[in-house]
Amino acid sequence: AIDSDALWQDIMETAQFGATEKGGLCRLALSAEDRQVRNWFTQTAEALGATVTSDDMGNQFARFEGTEPGLAPIAIGSHLDTQPTGGKYDGIIGVLGGIAVLRTLKESGRRLRHPVEIVNWTNEEGARFAPAMLSSGVFAKIFTADFAKSRVDAEGTRFDAALASIDAAGDEPCGEHPLAAYLELHIEQGPMLEAEHCTIGVVTGVQGMRWYEVTVTGRDSHAGTTPMTMRADALQAASRLMASVQEIALNRPPHAVGTVGMVTVKPNSRNTIPGEVIFSVDLRDPNDDVVIAMENSFRDRAGALSREYGVSIGIREIWDSPAVHFDQRLIDAVSFAARAQHLPSREITSGAGHDAAYLARIVPTTMIFVPCAGGISHNESESATREDIAAGANVLLQTLFIADRQ
Amino acid sequence: AIDSDALWQDIMETAQFGATEKGGLCRLALSAEDRQVRNWFTQTAEALGATVTSDDMGNQFARFEGTEPGLAPIAIGSHLDTQPTGGKYDGIIGVLGGIAVLRTLKESGRRLRHPVEIVNWTNEEGARFAPAMLSSGVFAKIFTADFAKSRVDAEGTRFDAALASIDAAGDEPCGEHPLAAYLELHIEQGPMLEAEHCTIGVVTGVQGMRWYEVTVTGRDSHAGTTPMTMRADALQAASRLMASVQEIALNRPPHAVGTVGMVTVKPNSRNTIPGEVIFSVDLRDPNDDVVIAMENSFRDRAGALSREYGVSIGIREIWDSPAVHFDQRLIDAVSFAARAQHLPSREITSGAGHDAAYLARIVPTTMIFVPCAGGISHNESESATREDIAAGANVLLQTLFIADRQ
Ligand SMILES: NC(=O)NCCC(=O)O
Ligand SMILES: NC(=O)NCCC(=O)O
Repeated sequence: AIDSDALWQDIMETAQFGATEKGGLCRLALSAEDRQVRNWFTQTAEALGATVTSDDMGNQFARFEGTEPGLAPIAIGSHLDTQPTGGKYDGIIGVLGGIAVLRTLKESGRRLRHPVEIVNWTNEEGARFAPAMLSSGVFAKIFTADFAKSRVDAEGTRFDAALASIDAAGDEPCGEHPLAAYLELHIEQGPMLEAEHCTIGVVTGVQGMRWYEVTVTGRDSHAGTTPMTMRADALQAASRLMASVQEIALNRPPHAVGTVGMVTVKPNSRNTIPGEVIFSVDLRDPNDDVVIAMENSFRDRAGALSREYGVSIGIREIWDSPAVHFDQRLIDAVSFAARAQHLPSREITSGAGHDAAYLARIVPTTMIFVPCAGGISHNESESATREDIAAGANVLLQTLFIADRQ
Repeated sequence: AIDSDALWQDIMETAQFGATEKGGLCRLALSAEDRQVRNWFTQTAEALGATVTSDDMGNQFARFEGTEPGLAPIAIGSHLDTQPTGGKYDGIIGVLGGIAVLRTLKESGRRLRHPVEIVNWTNEEGARFAPAMLSSGVFAKIFTADFAKSRVDAEGTRFDAALASIDAAGDEPCGEHPLAAYLELHIEQGPMLEAEHCTIGVVTGVQGMRWYEVTVTGRDSHAGTTPMTMRADALQAASRLMASVQEIALNRPPHAVGTVGMVTVKPNSRNTIPGEVIFSVDLRDPNDDVVIAMENSFRDRAGALSREYGVSIGIREIWDSPAVHFDQRLIDAVSFAARAQHLPSREITSGAGHDAAYLARIVPTTMIFVPCAGGISHNESESATREDIAAGANVLLQTLFIADRQ
């Protein structure tokens, strides 16, 4: 079994890298804080007998050899980057749960047939560089490395420049090495498991999600002298369009969600009517057709508001991650492991995107969820219990054993 | 009469300080570009025989002596700072029109009874430091110097630090020296004069205006996993509240205007439901009671949305500039001067705030407007003709002569 004290201690120790005053983390991908936790990962994994390498997207692999030559590794992973106001668990327990598996293997002396690799994927959050799951996406050939390396953050820094600035790139071209299976432990980030008193979420897949960048262009003019009827106010049109995102999602219950997370107003001066507003839209549903229907409603609304306000509205899709169904044998293995450990569980679809969603396109993949308090995530107060995380890591360990025999 | 070629050349020469690609200006108060134009002002006024001093708010005074000892100066002024995407005329023609008056006095040898002072008021726009008309406000004892010097810009820089950084502060405490009258030439910044083919706006006063800072506080959470019904989305509530500003102004025709110019979203990440949104509101009407009624409607709407969305909404009034009526004798002087020069004119209330609105509280004051193309201002394409500006400067000159005899 997992050493739950050591696992909890690892979580608390790494939570110093990018700690915020409110007890959360701000550890944006490829920041100075990300470098600190990457170094910790390397040192800790090496001390447990693993060999650590990086690929040219900065993905880190800590490899622990197996007994049977020629078998591809089973990978366990997630990410160590966070949102600007993120928590201590999102992504992190997937990587440190893997470190806990290594520790068990080392201390028990038990060897598996397959090599085991613990993976830290770069820029999963999509907070610094859009889209999310960027480097697991390159690994799975969803994105080209050229596309990924040319992404820019809000300050205009390119992904490849950020990678170089913290020396995070290795020599191996991303996606070159084969895997036998991929497993990811994660907090649910939603309210279901807690509400139903389940310790383990047997994740069957990930819902479909799309991101858009919307640009509303009107005309800058003076707030005091321009009559209401002579305005082309980009922000008035944008606020009605942003409000429509909620309406559109509420019209497609029970699963659809829609969010505007990011807004830029130009010139952003109190007494100038905004001439340009740029905002993000995130639309999701387990059924891809519902996502498409929401997009169509949104485009219709934008067309109507564009005419009403005399502004132009451009909608650019910047990410499309269709719904994913995980590998049935691995889903069954997680379900079996939960039952074997007498842990209450239920099947669940992930509302969040995860590196596993992209890995599933190229290798048998599944995920294990544990509850988080109130379903709150992407928030500094995100919280999960030591017991639930340990239970999740034990299910991860047993699922690995099953996968190793398959 | 004014040397209209020299005046036009001064406008074009100073337009190099902070020139934007689109032919406008970005010359925020107390920036490096502001320092350049301030130095130009000093050198040019000194070459015309004036003595230039600054007060401790950075207001610049170029003094040309009169013949009668002991008389307080008649001031002519406006501002040389601009919006982030401002034009070449707003404020600028008021100061450079004053320089043109000095040039006429020097070249004609005509001396007035009163000294004449050309004034460049610091931070009129309110774009870098809110509120607007900050330093004329200190001069008129509307604000204390301590309050003004502690204002901070979006980067957190205090007004006094910015003042020191470009060496713009003089020794004289702001507001110490008496004035006999104050005159300001300005573009209308609205569409009336152009629409009615008037060259001169005889400005009778300035409408009432208030600024608010609104903070909507919800709860950050995950865009993909948080059901629509479990959100406290600060931006959804804010977008409905921002949209209400237009509605509230449209409900009080024909003059009321309402604008949201500035928005900050936190944490501003595509896949995090915003936990906090801060935005500005600008409400105006020539009748102060209408401004108050609009404020009340806005507060009611905020209360309702706060309950509907489960968010808290704080509304802080950060500026209140009541409606102003200018000095009747000076208004009549402008009207007379326009008629004497056979210039078509009409009375007009200013929709924009101006340094004159504060000067009017302490000294007989009026303004002269000239048209600008399409009424467009606070826009890089702001434009006004050489002829109209020269006509306005000639009315200014004649109004000065009349005021000097009063
Ligand atoms: N797990 C997680 O929060 N990933 C970020 C990608 C998403 O937006 O769902
Ligand atoms: N003239 C001018 O644009 N002043 C700025 C103050 C205002 O917002 O009206």
